[in-house]
Amino acid sequence: MGSGSTKLRLGVLASGGGTNLQSIIDACSAGDIDAQIVRVICNNPNAGALQRAERAHIPNCCINHRDFDTRTAFDAAVISQLQQDRVELVILAGFMRIVGADFIRAFTHRIMNIHPALLPAFPGLNVQKKALEYGAKFTGCTVHFIDADVDTGPIIAQAVVPVFDDDTEESLSARILEQEHRLYPHAIQLFAAGALKVEGRRVLIDPAYANTGKFHASALINPPPA
Amino acid sequence: MGSGSTKLRLGVLASGGGTNLQSIIDACSAGDIDAQIVRVICNNPNAGALQRAERAHIPNCCINHRDFDTRTAFDAAVISQLQQDRVELVILAGFMRIVGADFIRAFTHRIMNIHPALLPAFPGLNVQKKALEYGAKFTGCTVHFIDADVDTGPIIAQAVVPVFDDDTEESLSARILEQEHRLYPHAIQLFAAGALKVEGRRVLIDPAYANTGKFHASALINPPPA
Repeated sequence: MGSGSTKLRLGVLASGGGTNLQSIIDACSAGDIDAQIVRVICNNPNAGALQRAERAHIPNCCINHRDFDTRTAFDAAVISQLQQDRVELVILAGFMRIVGADFIRAFTHRIMNIHPALLPAFPGLNVQKKALEYGAKFTGCTVHFIDADVDTGPIIAQAVVPVFDDDTEESLSARILEQEHRLYPHAIQLFAAGALKVEGRRVLIDPAYANTGKFHASALINPPPA
Repeated sequence: MGSGSTKLRLGVLASGGGTNLQSIIDACSAGDIDAQIVRVICNNPNAGALQRAERAHIPNCCINHRDFDTRTAFDAAVISQLQQDRVELVILAGFMRIVGADFIRAFTHRIMNIHPALLPAFPGLNVQKKALEYGAKFTGCTVHFIDADVDTGPIIAQAVVPVFDDDTEESLSARILEQEHRLYPHAIQLFAAGALKVEGRRVLIDPAYANTGKFHASALINPPPA
């Protein structure tokens, strides 16, 4: 896009190492998404995500949930910071706090999350292990808008990967994470391009961005036929 | 396999039109699976599956559940017929009756079912419609062994297909059905080859049959990136 255009203003919330944050930083730098991260907020002062933001010269701060008596008060502080930064899209990137009703109202269909499973299969925590133990032959990751429940909001994009018999929790998590790093920037760019429309619980994609032609006959089978 | 070898003896239970039965008949005829269907049983005298069996000269009968006072009595009649035919693997192909505990005990890990969704997502009925309405970007089909609950048994094989914004229940069902017709014969052949081992709720594939090499880097994303 041209230098005169206005980039979508992202606020990223993270609790951990921030590899998904890094993939978004990199995609912004590379010009793959028409967005800029204007704020990184961590609820944990030791989150690696803060150092990644610092290295990329992105404004960042810790808002420690332990400093607040209630989730509502913590959420209010986060909302206030995001509004001050004129954030247009909130990105949860390994953010381990549940977002409350006030937060969702303030940013309706403007909060994205990524979940390391093919929702509605395997909501909750430790889902790579759960998929493995369940014996699923496929799992993946899901980018969705946040709604009032956990892991139930309208699905924007999904990536599928096979599960193999010799997988460990680590090998499967790594295979999924590789796709997370592709999927999240892709979903953010669809939003930045104005290509997403939420209808009930379905997220429809502007056909100009859907690229379905090359894809119609595709299917994966696991275990793969000879 | 050579003409002197012994083919796996299949019993197929169906309630409806029998397109999955047909795909198995065709795969047996083509020699793609080392199995023969020795009996088709329908619980409904008008099931198209009976005509398909008749056309293929496969022994077939109707055991009408309405003729029995209890599910246990109906199941006992079906089990008796299958045992008389020395059936080694029972194939549920659109069989709309729940299989009882006695039946499962008589054929532990020797009853397969196919379900038109990526279990554990979307168990139950009308699941193509449910996947569409949920806004899932992928769905598919699952071949699994039957256990004591519905749609929960150990997963043998799965196929994934994308869901598109312009899908109807019919178009999505057709895309899944195309994969069902590939997946079910494939899963039966893995059983016939002795390549399946059930460990807890995981079904492990003999590595000689897993063909994972060509597959390790594969992933699908929907909506597909540019």
